[in-house]
Amino acid sequence: MNILIRNADIITLDDENHILRQADLAIANETIVAVGQTPIDFAPDEVIDGDDRVILPAFYNAHTHAPMTLERGWAEDLPFDRWLNEKIWVAESALTEEDVYWGAALAACEMIRAGIVGFADHYFWMDQVAQVVNESGMKALLAWCVFGLGADKEIGGVTLERTIEFAQRWHNTVDGRVRVTLGPHSPYMCSDDFLQRVVAAAQQHGLGIHLHVAESIDQVENSLEAHGQTPVAHLAALGVFDERLSTIAAHCIAVNEDDIALLAEKRVHVAHCPKTYLKLAMGMAPLQKFLEAGVAVALGTDGPASNNDLNLLEVMRLAGLYQKNDQRRPEVLPHDELLRLATQTGARALGFDRVGMIAPGQRADVILFNTDRPHWIPRHDLAANIVYAAHPSDITHVMCDGRWLLRNGALTTLDEEQIMREAERRAFRMAGTSLHQMREYRG
Amino acid sequence: MNILIRNADIITLDDENHILRQADLAIANETIVAVGQTPIDFAPDEVIDGDDRVILPAFYNAHTHAPMTLERGWAEDLPFDRWLNEKIWVAESALTEEDVYWGAALAACEMIRAGIVGFADHYFWMDQVAQVVNESGMKALLAWCVFGLGADKEIGGVTLERTIEFAQRWHNTVDGRVRVTLGPHSPYMCSDDFLQRVVAAAQQHGLGIHLHVAESIDQVENSLEAHGQTPVAHLAALGVFDERLSTIAAHCIAVNEDDIALLAEKRVHVAHCPKTYLKLAMGMAPLQKFLEAGVAVALGTDGPASNNDLNLLEVMRLAGLYQKNDQRRPEVLPHDELLRLATQTGARALGFDRVGMIAPGQRADVILFNTDRPHWIPRHDLAANIVYAAHPSDITHVMCDGRWLLRNGALTTLDEEQIMREAERRAFRMAGTSLHQMREYRG
Repeated sequence: MNILIRNADIITLDDENHILRQADLAIANETIVAVGQTPIDFAPDEVIDGDDRVILPAFYNAHTHAPMTLERGWAEDLPFDRWLNEKIWVAESALTEEDVYWGAALAACEMIRAGIVGFADHYFWMDQVAQVVNESGMKALLAWCVFGLGADKEIGGVTLERTIEFAQRWHNTVDGRVRVTLGPHSPYMCSDDFLQRVVAAAQQHGLGIHLHVAESIDQVENSLEAHGQTPVAHLAALGVFDERLSTIAAHCIAVNEDDIALLAEKRVHVAHCPKTYLKLAMGMAPLQKFLEAGVAVALGTDGPASNNDLNLLEVMRLAGLYQKNDQRRPEVLPHDELLRLATQTGARALGFDRVGMIAPGQRADVILFNTDRPHWIPRHDLAANIVYAAHPSDITHVMCDGRWLLRNGALTTLDEEQIMREAERRAFRMAGTSLHQMREYRG
Repeated sequence: MNILIRNADIITLDDENHILRQADLAIANETIVAVGQTPIDFAPDEVIDGDDRVILPAFYNAHTHAPMTLERGWAEDLPFDRWLNEKIWVAESALTEEDVYWGAALAACEMIRAGIVGFADHYFWMDQVAQVVNESGMKALLAWCVFGLGADKEIGGVTLERTIEFAQRWHNTVDGRVRVTLGPHSPYMCSDDFLQRVVAAAQQHGLGIHLHVAESIDQVENSLEAHGQTPVAHLAALGVFDERLSTIAAHCIAVNEDDIALLAEKRVHVAHCPKTYLKLAMGMAPLQKFLEAGVAVALGTDGPASNNDLNLLEVMRLAGLYQKNDQRRPEVLPHDELLRLATQTGARALGFDRVGMIAPGQRADVILFNTDRPHWIPRHDLAANIVYAAHPSDITHVMCDGRWLLRNGALTTLDEEQIMREAERRAFRMAGTSLHQMREYRG
């Protein structure tokens, strides 16, 4: 299948930050074959008019819990402990394996509409999420969350061994679109023994690790008391940050200078999720310091139960705006750098190669924005417009590995209507409520 | 004209925070006549199906510089002094009176699409903005910005006397949709003598005042040195906060406890514009402290040159998220309170009455969101979905004083295509550039 997009503006995110005007993009099967002018011998099967469209590499979401769409709006404006104990755990105790499928399918609809083609997911019953990745045409790095408590105490009765079997079923399958990593929850919920077993298993099976790290000062103080080390130093000592594991460390909010240096040295992928930190009042990870120290930072939405959506455009904006003000320097986190965090470093954290740039030889993971809308006018700076003013609804086309997932505003791989109805029905069942019971009707 | 919206969910923002399910909303001319069930004798000229729609009072934007849409994206990621001196003033020096019309018209298109029906504008050549308000069907409180330097040194050659004449031409005209206030720039750009003349003129002509206050620590230090008082205390001493003037004080970022108490006591309307503060790294106004002290806070977008859009949904979200994290209390600024800031207190700041609530007798300023989209599902909490996940494109209908400004996603009062083309052409002229000159083309 040869696809030609004609006369579009293209934000290449190449090494020179070229922005091309009225340029062509030629795609053969899953690969970009030309950028700028169409080769004379290129025979397209499909031609898209790029007038008033800007093309950007697609987004990669480096940390989420996709099936938690079912808990969107279910626990609002609460202190963290009440949010978790009174609301989230209660709903999750009613979760079934099939619910996970529908929650993840709803998340896939939302993510595709927001220009996200790949996501790093950390949840339960992950075969269901893998099935959604397969059907949706997206890419994902999947981790089955496990606490190391023994099957009788785990959600879904899982054990480390069963998560390894999950990896063996799915890692590098579905045309390479599904990758699997091990998913110990965190150093504060898993024992040292268990984390060392995870490291050994990851090394043995050639897998990575994705876990939660240093989300609060309390976690740091508890770690210092128990281990005499910060969570980051402790995980490094346990081998969790072995460079071959390409570990994704979500959050890393409460870190000191030594931790930052260690994260850089070990080439840990830090998933930065500022919307959750702000909404749950968790403090803010030192993004600008991470970048100055050379830490590989990617951006994540986190789960929609905290967040309340899966919109990496907004995450990118929040990440930049917060740091500019925090540093009292409006020039930090310029928009080109923010775009790279949401695309290139995200793709690298997930282990997908040849993506994150519009250039010949790259895989065709691209999104098109419609710029013919009042909030885009005048088009002085297309990249700034995306970072500071664009919405998911401006995205008309999304392509992953050369295949359309969204075309002219319509999802091409998923039955959105059915997914919305079924996911909502299950969410109300989990919450023990219904749309009409939720608030009184005053007739 | 009688309009009936059937079977919608309604966020009333009434005193009990009722959210009605599958309720009717009946509107006769400019007024809401029934909420809940339709009166038997109500004969609608138009019926709207409210299925999968949620109705909210419309938004009021308490501080902006609407014509600065023309400078959107023109000065990105720069330190404040370079942003202002190298870019913004240079572009504004090329501004013509007719440019102001087209910039404001573009802003009106964008604001209506974002559910904003009223705005407090502070700029130059304000007859042009008043004309846009007239044509668009919106409401506005207009201030012609003046520095008190004498006509030969003012943008557009204006004087206080000419801004009073502007008020006399337009105040309480256009079916009461245009209101006018005096617009001295700020205490740091205007002399004490001039501000006292403004206060006397406002009292004499029954007008209010809208100005910029305490945007930085530097301004506070300079005020202490020059006057021995903070900007807030100094303005109070000059009479600028005389309660009869209903003064809008934009920003109030650098304020102390005494200033906050004074703003509450004088019933000053503080316009809070957090997106600008974050993007230009100005610090953050103490919103939660304002509210605890009883200050009348409204929300503003500020101008699109800093901001880069006119999206009060995002401003509301940023205002809440920042304060939750800053206070380390996720329960502060609950979503109902944020919705009130963006609607009721905004309308009050602008001096429009009988708006900000869906109740019989109120003016029909209402917006409809389409909730049948993945990022809204499940609909556990409609108000939280609006505050934390909705986008302007979810807004399908906008009504101001019973008249549609947006219907089924289409603007009804403005020629959006012509406005986008003409505004962009003028913006490129002002910036001395063109779309194609801006970045090299790599063919």
